Amino acid sequence: MERFTHLDEKGQAIMVDVTQKEETQRIAVAGGSIYVGEEVFSAIIEDTVPKGDVLACARVAGIMAAKKTSDLIPLCHPLPLGSVSVEFEMEEETFSIRCRSRVKLAGQTGVEMEALTAVSVALLTVYDMCKAINKRMEIGKICLEEKSGGKSGYFVRHD
Amino acid sequence: MERFTHLDEKGQAIMVDVTQKEETQRIAVAGGSIYVGEEVFSAIIEDTVPKGDVLACARVAGIMAAKKTSDLIPLCHPLPLGSVSVEFEMEEETFSIRCRSRVKLAGQTGVEMEALTAVSVALLTVYDMCKAINKRMEIGKICLEEKSGGKSGYFVRHD
Amino acid sequence: MERFTHLDEKGQAIMVDVTQKEETQRIAVAGGSIYVGEEVFSAIIEDTVPKGDVLACARVAGIMAAKKTSDLIPLCHPLPLGSVSVEFEMEEETFSIRCRSRVKLAGQTGVEMEALTAVSVALLTVYDMCKAINKRMEIGKICLEEKSGGKSGYFVRHD
Amino acid sequence: MERFTHLDEKGQAIMVDVTQKEETQRIAVAGGSIYVGEEVFSAIIEDTVPKGDVLACARVAGIMAAKKTSDLIPLCHPLPLGSVSVEFEMEEETFSIRCRSRVKLAGQTGVEMEALTAVSVALLTVYDMCKAINKRMEIGKICLEEKSGGKSGYFVRHD
Amino acid sequence: MERFTHLDEKGQAIMVDVTQKEETQRIAVAGGSIYVGEEVFSAIIEDTVPKGDVLACARVAGIMAAKKTSDLIPLCHPLPLGSVSVEFEMEEETFSIRCRSRVKLAGQTGVEMEALTAVSVALLTVYDMCKAINKRMEIGKICLEEKSGGKSGYFVRHD
Amino acid sequence: MERFTHLDEKGQAIMVDVTQKEETQRIAVAGGSIYVGEEVFSAIIEDTVPKGDVLACARVAGIMAAKKTSDLIPLCHPLPLGSVSVEFEMEEETFSIRCRSRVKLAGQTGVEMEALTAVSVALLTVYDMCKAINKRMEIGKICLEEKSGGKSGYFVRHD
Repeated sequence: MERFTHLDEKGQAIMVDVTQKEETQRIAVAGGSIYVGEEVFSAIIEDTVPKGDVLACARVAGIMAAKKTSDLIPLCHPLPLGSVSVEFEMEEETFSIRCRSRVKLAGQTGVEMEALTAVSVALLTVYDMCKAINKRMEIGKICLEEKSGGKSGYFVRHD
Repeated sequence: MERFTHLDEKGQAIMVDVTQKEETQRIAVAGGSIYVGEEVFSAIIEDTVPKGDVLACARVAGIMAAKKTSDLIPLCHPLPLGSVSVEFEMEEETFSIRCRSRVKLAGQTGVEMEALTAVSVALLTVYDMCKAINKRMEIGKICLEEKSGGKSGYFVRHD
Repeated sequence: MERFTHLDEKGQAIMVDVTQKEETQRIAVAGGSIYVGEEVFSAIIEDTVPKGDVLACARVAGIMAAKKTSDLIPLCHPLPLGSVSVEFEMEEETFSIRCRSRVKLAGQTGVEMEALTAVSVALLTVYDMCKAINKRMEIGKICLEEKSGGKSGYFVRHD
Repeated sequence: MERFTHLDEKGQAIMVDVTQKEETQRIAVAGGSIYVGEEVFSAIIEDTVPKGDVLACARVAGIMAAKKTSDLIPLCHPLPLGSVSVEFEMEEETFSIRCRSRVKLAGQTGVEMEALTAVSVALLTVYDMCKAINKRMEIGKICLEEKSGGKSGYFVRHD
Repeated sequence: MERFTHLDEKGQAIMVDVTQKEETQRIAVAGGSIYVGEEVFSAIIEDTVPKGDVLACARVAGIMAAKKTSDLIPLCHPLPLGSVSVEFEMEEETFSIRCRSRVKLAGQTGVEMEALTAVSVALLTVYDMCKAINKRMEIGKICLEEKSGGKSGYFVRHD
Repeated sequence: MERFTHLDEKGQAIMVDVTQKEETQRIAVAGGSIYVGEEVFSAIIEDTVPKGDVLACARVAGIMAAKKTSDLIPLCHPLPLGSVSVEFEMEEETFSIRCRSRVKLAGQTGVEMEALTAVSVALLTVYDMCKAINKRMEIGKICLEEKSGGKSGYFVRHD
């Protein structure tokens, strides 16, 4: 059985040593979605201008959050990220908004936590901007979709 | 139809004015969970010492994240939070860990975003500490469970 | 002659004591502008979608910066801001973009630094997003336009 | 016509990918100034001790702000800055204080935003420390003075 | 025996609830010192200009750190501090520099952690600026000297 | 006599230029301790569960603080740390808790400030969690224990 890499032999939290790891091109893609309900969904769809700002604001929040990952997640390494993008898709059949973030780094450790953090904060920002209309929104399906670079090789999740 | 309170009449993002709102005792409880799979679940259950540190570390991360909410969510007000707690429950039947955060404030605006942020970051921290074992974990069911104080009164979500 | 309130009798920096000051409704409005030149100006005007995002992004950056004022300006008090807004105006005759920020607080100290910081960072964000097109942009005219609340009373700047 | 590098083909904000860019020695010099008026100017000049602390405090604020650039400007990359300096010059004929910041990095992207942010925050700090004496100060002339490294080559601004 | 107020009945970390506590005028004074050795001590004493900047820089760092206390210490409440000061004293007989910080707040919880954090970071800053001269400096004697306000009343430490 | 490397020829603070320095494997170990007194010491020793959380919480705080060093210490360079660990030892004869932090970096500048900051904040966190029991705790003996890498070579402190 594999071990918790973030715990030492006594079970204590440590930030693992990556100084000997190979510097490779790393990419991670994470996704997630928020169920907003019909009323919020229609408001975003119909009202073109606010739509711009709700999602523009959430996109900026997600990108900025990717840069704060090591400040939020105790054992994450601070990383000079190479690129971050955050995208949204309106899913009418479920009155949901899907979010996907892609992060790149030429470095010694993976960037899945950065992509997952970007998605989480982008969706929380959508929640914040719509919460006056609906208190029953729900954020979910936050997971790693794709990852490349590093010794564990290429990973893709098929649902 | 209600409006997006975080957008002005031109659809532009603003941090809404709460200076005229009544100062009341505000409480928000948010929940969420992470599916970790059988291997991670067993590792956490069986290995008593690390269990302490994985969840202790995630709890601290969640509490600290609640305090960073206004730094993460663009239109949230900075608030002198009165209390924050983060709890976990192991759910064996689904190989999941449930997280619940409770935030209190005597103030002019609600604290649901703080509770939701605490839950999100606590679960991301669990993810980070276990990701070497399983790349298919999934965070979900992040929602507001309970809220009191303020003009919208008491809210509880029954699933 | 008045004194530097942020220096003690030995000329050393201190964060002044506001605990005895009256809690009043405080408002500050600050303004500033960036000369972007004809090419950038046209690009923003003509290209409707990017325009949305350039200014939406800068607006979010300005609002978030207002909340970071006490983290940036050494002797500013941390304040639970009541509201922040940031607006832009395209000034074709000078190929400039004007920015104005309005900040409110029910508290013991003024919020002009928060409004000035919001304007500065919003304009720096416009600069960042347009700098690949023009290296000769210039930010200027950053000043307090209006202020009310507190013992110094109402102030308005007429240019 | 050149494009906004910080917007994708749909006009949405992204943090651009620099992972393929060449790592070169990058230098940026930015400048700006604050008109403080005669009373503040004389107070700073005549009162030798406070002068030390006003400018020392503003210099520290500027240097620290350069390190926070990627936290303030949404699409800036987090960078391991190699050096930062901030200098002031008293300009008696205009009762102004000029500020200049120089930032160096061996890296894949330019550092003009870091230099511009250092200047902006240093000048805001001067403003903060003198605002009890004069509410009509004005910050301006913030621009890039010099830049080297990277594919766009050497740039110098002649006024 | 008294209990750990920051642990719940299960021994888990929580940010304690202060919303029911009385709002009083709170003051805390903390002190500490750094042994710098003769060479550094003389360099600071003799070289008048740098002395200004070493201590001015450390003072600013200490004041800014007080404002970051809740971001550093996991279970500290975010507080709208009313005032912060940081002072130094050269102690020639021991080649040490003493630092003292005083923090005030009209609020529901004490500010000793803010004063202790200000002292710690101010001394670390002195260390940083002198470490090229002496690697054997030592920071110590960091303790609470005085505290008033709140239900535990007035406390003063006599050494 | 050696010079303050963080001051320029005019005695003004600067962040020194490290862009020409050699990139080597850097390690720094710092230590420190907190006298907590008999009552707190026994409480931590006897009460097994809280002990876990007090030290687990302080360890996390120390690791996170190492990552914030450049945000706290004005002239420290922002660094992509390779690893950070924080350990505690109970010293019964003096009713003290010893803390040691080890930081690694493959980079152009040393990491002693990161290790010293981790120790300082970890000890402040212990203080915070125990201060309701004892107001006379004292933090001390914070110093560099070991350092390797860079042009100054290997250093070890023997007490």
